[in-house]
Formats: sequence, structure tokens, C-alpha cells
Amino acid sequence: MNSTGLIVEYNPFHNGHFFHVEEARKRTDADVIIAVMSGNFLQRGEPAIISKWARAKMALQAGVDIVVELPYAFAVQHAETFAYGSINILHALKCNSFCFGSESGNINEFSDAIDLIENHRVEYEAFVKELMKTGVSYPTSLSQSMKKIYPDHKNYIDLAKPNNILGFHYMQINNTLQSPMRAFTIKRKNANYHDEEFSSSTIASATSIRKATFEANQSINGIEQYVPKTTSNVLQEYYNDYQTFHNWEMYWPYLQYRLLSIEETDLANIYEIEEGIEHRLKRYAKDAVSFHDFMQRVKTKRYTWTRIQRMCVHILTNTKKSEMLRHHNHIEYIRLLGMTERGRMYLSQIKKDIDVPLISKISAISSELLELDIRASNIYSQGLQEPYRQKMFKTEYAQPPIYIHQN
Amino acid sequence: MNSTGLIVEYNPFHNGHFFHVEEARKRTDADVIIAVMSGNFLQRGEPAIISKWARAKMALQAGVDIVVELPYAFAVQHAETFAYGSINILHALKCNSFCFGSESGNINEFSDAIDLIENHRVEYEAFVKELMKTGVSYPTSLSQSMKKIYPDHKNYIDLAKPNNILGFHYMQINNTLQSPMRAFTIKRKNANYHDEEFSSSTIASATSIRKATFEANQSINGIEQYVPKTTSNVLQEYYNDYQTFHNWEMYWPYLQYRLLSIEETDLANIYEIEEGIEHRLKRYAKDAVSFHDFMQRVKTKRYTWTRIQRMCVHILTNTKKSEMLRHHNHIEYIRLLGMTERGRMYLSQIKKDIDVPLISKISAISSELLELDIRASNIYSQGLQEPYRQKMFKTEYAQPPIYIHQN
Repeated sequence: MNSTGLIVEYNPFHNGHFFHVEEARKRTDADVIIAVMSGNFLQRGEPAIISKWARAKMALQAGVDIVVELPYAFAVQHAETFAYGSINILHALKCNSFCFGSESGNINEFSDAIDLIENHRVEYEAFVKELMKTGVSYPTSLSQSMKKIYPDHKNYIDLAKPNNILGFHYMQINNTLQSPMRAFTIKRKNANYHDEEFSSSTIASATSIRKATFEANQSINGIEQYVPKTTSNVLQEYYNDYQTFHNWEMYWPYLQYRLLSIEETDLANIYEIEEGIEHRLKRYAKDAVSFHDFMQRVKTKRYTWTRIQRMCVHILTNTKKSEMLRHHNHIEYIRLLGMTERGRMYLSQIKKDIDVPLISKISAISSELLELDIRASNIYSQGLQEPYRQKMFKTEYAQPPIYIHQN
Repeated sequence: MNSTGLIVEYNPFHNGHFFHVEEARKRTDADVIIAVMSGNFLQRGEPAIISKWARAKMALQAGVDIVVELPYAFAVQHAETFAYGSINILHALKCNSFCFGSESGNINEFSDAIDLIENHRVEYEAFVKELMKTGVSYPTSLSQSMKKIYPDHKNYIDLAKPNNILGFHYMQINNTLQSPMRAFTIKRKNANYHDEEFSSSTIASATSIRKATFEANQSINGIEQYVPKTTSNVLQEYYNDYQTFHNWEMYWPYLQYRLLSIEETDLANIYEIEEGIEHRLKRYAKDAVSFHDFMQRVKTKRYTWTRIQRMCVHILTNTKKSEMLRHHNHIEYIRLLGMTERGRMYLSQIKKDIDVPLISKISAISSELLELDIRASNIYSQGLQEPYRQKMFKTEYAQPPIYIHQN
């Protein structure tokens, strides 16, 4: 069976995602679509609006055949480590190709950029380093360094765009594999990544959909035209089950409590905390009346919102440098969140050939990397009130992979 | 001016306390009554029903002249360290005497017990150690050891009674001082320390009063006959200001969060965590739906409710062994919470002679011991919802000592 991998967050799954799944299937002539999906905390340092189980269900009901979890140690990370984990998992699952959305939409622009940079690696890396020292962000530094090296090159890719930079890293990591997967990219339609307002009649960014969901007083009215019916249903089911959608504000009391009670030396041991920002984080924790207020107080030109949000997730989950550095370059297991009938057939076909344990339950193996996932899930549940907190705690241990009989 | 010290928690101040203040004043012929009072967390490992400021106000309005805070490092402690801090503070404030409530009510019984034990210290301590090894509690071991050494002695004091054992330690510590204060004791009236139901018409235990306050749906109806009018007023004011009284359940989500996110090795570094109980605490944290439920699951014959509650307070406030052991045998400052006009006169009279800094604001000195108090106060505030949380955070920094013009 011909298989194609996608790297996703589905927060929540919307029409743009649906388009991407269908287009990827066509372009790559896939029999099976495999999505590696962030768990309950996301790359940009946020809790997912609904749990990974509900998000896996949305995906499976809308055309994806297999959903596996990107472990916390790779998911809540800058682009390079995020790409490392995702690509390695898709490769371990024997994907023939992978397909990502990008602002560029042209796969040759990505290969060109990689070739150009490879040819001038030393010079290029020196430029990037120099620019970052002056306070320029990493993606912008990559982009500007390319301009410096090839001032006359017309079609260089804009690596300052969030999906381009991710795609660039996917392809870089893929190139380091023994048998690289074939890479495809699809131009993103209409909505820009961070758009907060709806910008077209049927495609809107996940950010704007989340915003609408929360603004509409935790109701899904007003988002139906931007998401498949299956997404509306799952969102409604989730709300019925847990009486809330998740956002950072639910976790703010815990983050504030943690910042007020932790010693600075211990805070400095949390992953991604560096350069003395621990003083700043502790200093502003007490005066802030909400997470949003806290972020406004803490952010600086030097630290992007996303970077600080990721720090906050690591503080919340008590993830230490020592833990992350032990684990962030090794895929110890692949956790199956759900599959369709076709996905099940694919997995039984490849099972004998894969050399990473494919697990359906967290009791299946003992792994420190998995401990991080379990802790992150527990903390995600902690945002709920009882009795919903208990319900979600139990789900993490008892839930078998979601199975969709007919796709 | 003749001054008498009391060691108190006033959680809340009730008629029994009022009787004790008046009786202490008469017996010791005091011009000034000084109370050293636990801050926001109490000896038995509980948050106080209302903040230390409100409790200080109750005391001052009902006859106490000076209220100072017993630092966290002495307050949330077993009897011996609690006594060490309290007696040393009263002595530093030049008290001529101190007066404690006890089940015995006879000061000679205390001196006798101390003499008897002093005369057979080695033998006595060996008995105590041996009994504790078999799982007998510390107070009961003290009591039983005395029976073993003096089987024929009729009037030995029952050290298994909670107020007797505290008084015993007060007197032991007082004896080690260069110029010991004169010791007085008053027999406790009617209510037993732990009584949960009201047992007489005007005197009830603080435990039963708290229980009534919470059971009556956070209303003070039904406790008026057991507390001075001033107490009812302060309780009502507090409720108007913060919309709640405090109990452990308010802090349960934070404790649970902490237990779920902390690593076992770090948990073992928290003060009073020993002998592998960290496994047990972590194991039961997830299944418990409330603090009460958690305590029921965790407690064993070996670990008393109070002992586990104290551990829980230290986990909640992130108080480490290293911090406590650095500080628990030195009075670095005395923090004034409030005074009457008469109290103010007394303090200006002794000011030149006291050799511990007497502080009115936490900005006055820099001390690691004080940092513990500030952290404990911040965590106490964290139990409130916004905007009340901010209000209480600010109080801790901005509140000058309460001043009562006319007593």
C-alpha cells in the first residue's frame, strides 16, 4: 500500500486541513494517509482546544487513516526538533512520501534552498549566527542570510514564513535519512497562519476558528462553514463530555502558583529557560491577573510570544533541561491514537518491518520519554474541574486507539 | 510595664480565647498581653480560616495588646520546634511571664515532669525511642515512658494530651534561656481541642467553630454565641472583602497539580518527607477527588493526619529540607502584625533593649527566613479567585501593622 505522511496539529481540524488531506492523497497517489499529530500541548506553546483523542477522531472521520502522537519532547519545540521527531516517526512507519502545506507551494524552491545552503554552509551559518546576535529572529535570519549569499537569486524561498520554515526543516531532516521519503508540498489556501478574523467563505485559520469558538462564549455557532460537519460534532461531543474547551487561561492559576513557589535556581533548570529570563518571569507572575496579561508584561523584542509560551508550557509541566536533553534525539516508541479499517490493514502489513515499538496503551512500555507525555496529559487534565478532571485522567490510561470502521 | 506572652493561632478567636486572655492578665498581673501567632498556615498543617491580618485584628479588639507573627519555619512544625520559636520570640520581646492553656491546669505537674525526666534523661529517651519504633506516637511515647520510670508516681501529667505536650515543650525551652520567663498555665474550659460539635453554651473549640462556619455554607450564623462580637464582625468583614473563608479544599488543585508534576527525587527533598512516603503521596494524588479524599487514602497508622497535613503544606509551599534546616533554630526578626495604644507604649519602652530586628514591613530587611513567610503568604493568596488574589498579594506588601487606638 502506498502511504503518505502528514505532520499536523488539527486544533481543530478544518476545511483547509480537509483540502490538504484530499490533495495530498491525489498528488501522491496514496492508499493510506498517516498523520503524526502533537498531543495535548502544541508547537507554539499552547494547550490544544480539545484533547488529542478528540482531535484524532476528527482526523479519522475526515479522511486520515492513521493518527499517531508526536511525543511532548518533540511537539513543544522549535521548528528543527519538531521536524526531527515528526519526520523520523513518519519514516519509521514506512511512509513512501510526506506532504506539507507551505506558503511557497513549490517543492523545487525548498530543494534549491537546501542545496544553496549546503554549498555555503560555513558562511551561511556564520551569517545566521551574527544576525541572531543582533536580535533578529531565527527564521528571518535564515531568510536574510540567503539573500546575502545569493543577492541575485530570484526564486529563493521566504524562510520567514512559518510553514515554509517548517517545510525546510522537514526536508533537511528527510535528506539525512537512509532512504528518504519523497517530499510534496501544497500551497496553503487563503488563510494565513496567524489570521484572527475569517478571511474567506469556507477556509479560515485554526487560530480564527479557536478565537470564534471562545468568543462565542464556548459555543461552536459561527464556525460551521469553516469546518467539516464531523469537526462540529466532535467539538460538541467534547463540550458535552467536559463542559469546556481548553485555553491557556485555564492553566494560568497553576502557572502563577508554580512561578510564585519555585526558586529561581530551579526555574533556571527548566527547559528553554535561559539568559536570566527566570527573574523576569518570577517578577511579573504576581501582578498579572491573567495569562494574557502576564504575556503582555513579560514579552520583549528579544523573546517572541511563541518562545515565551513554550517556556510557560515547560514550566507548567515541570520539564527540565536534563530530561529533554536525554530524550530529544531518539524515537523510543510510536503511540497509536487511532486508525480506520484501511489504516489497520496497513499497520498489520508493515508491523514485522518496523523497528520502533508501536504502542496502543501507555502501560505497554516503560520509557522516560513516555513519562513526559503522561505528565503532560495529567497537567492538561488538571485544567478541568472535577468530576471532568478524573474522567480525563482515566481516559489517558484506559482509552484504546480510536477505531473507525468505515472511512 | 509588666508583660505576659501567649502562644496562639486564633483560628478564629473565640470565647475560650477571651477567657484565657483575661485570666492570664489577672493571674500574672500583666499590663501588656503579647501574642505570638502563627501566620497563614498553622501548626496542624492547615491554612487559617482567615488571614493573619484579620486574626490579629480579632485579637487586638478582644484584649491582646501586641500581635507578632510566628514565622512559617516555626509555625508549621511539630511541637518542639513550634515551642522553640514561640518561646524565643516572647523572650526576645522581654516578656516577664508566659501563660498557656493546658488540660492539666497545674503548673507544678509540668515542672515535676521536667525534673523527673531530667533526672533520668538517658533511660527516658531510650524508652521513648523504643516505643516510637513500635509505631506509638511521640506524645503517647513520652507519657508511657514516664509511667515506666515512675510507676508509683500519682500526679504525673498526661503528655498525650495536645495542650499538655505543647506546654511541656514551652517550659523545657524556657528553662534553657538565660533569664527564663515565669510560667503560668490555665486549665482549658469545657471544649476539648479536637471537638467537632459544640459542647457547651458559650465555649466551643476553634475546630467546631470552623466546622460550623463552613457547614453553614460559609456563613457565620450559628457561631455568635461562641465568639466575641468583634470576631463575628471581623469574619463578616473578611467575607465581604474576599468572598470566602479558607480551607484545604481551596488549595487541593494546586497540591494535586504539584504532586502530579514533581519528580519523586524532588519530592523527597521537601521538608518532612521521609521514609519513602513520596511514592505514596504521588500514587494517590491522581485518584483523589478532594483534599479530604486524598487524606483518607494516604493516611496510615504510622502517619497521623496532622503529620501528613504538615507535609502537604510544605509541598504546597515548596519548602525544602535544606531551607528549613538552615533556618529553624534562629530568630532573625520579629514581624509586628498589630498593636493597641498600650502595646505601642510597651514597644517604645523596650525597643532600645531588644536585639532582634522588630519589623513592620517585609521590605525592612532581607532574610531567607522571611522569604519563606512571603512565599507562604503568596500561596495562601493563590487560593483566592481574582480580583481577590491580587488584593491579598498587595496586602502582604502594603499593610502596616494594625493599630487599635483604644482597647
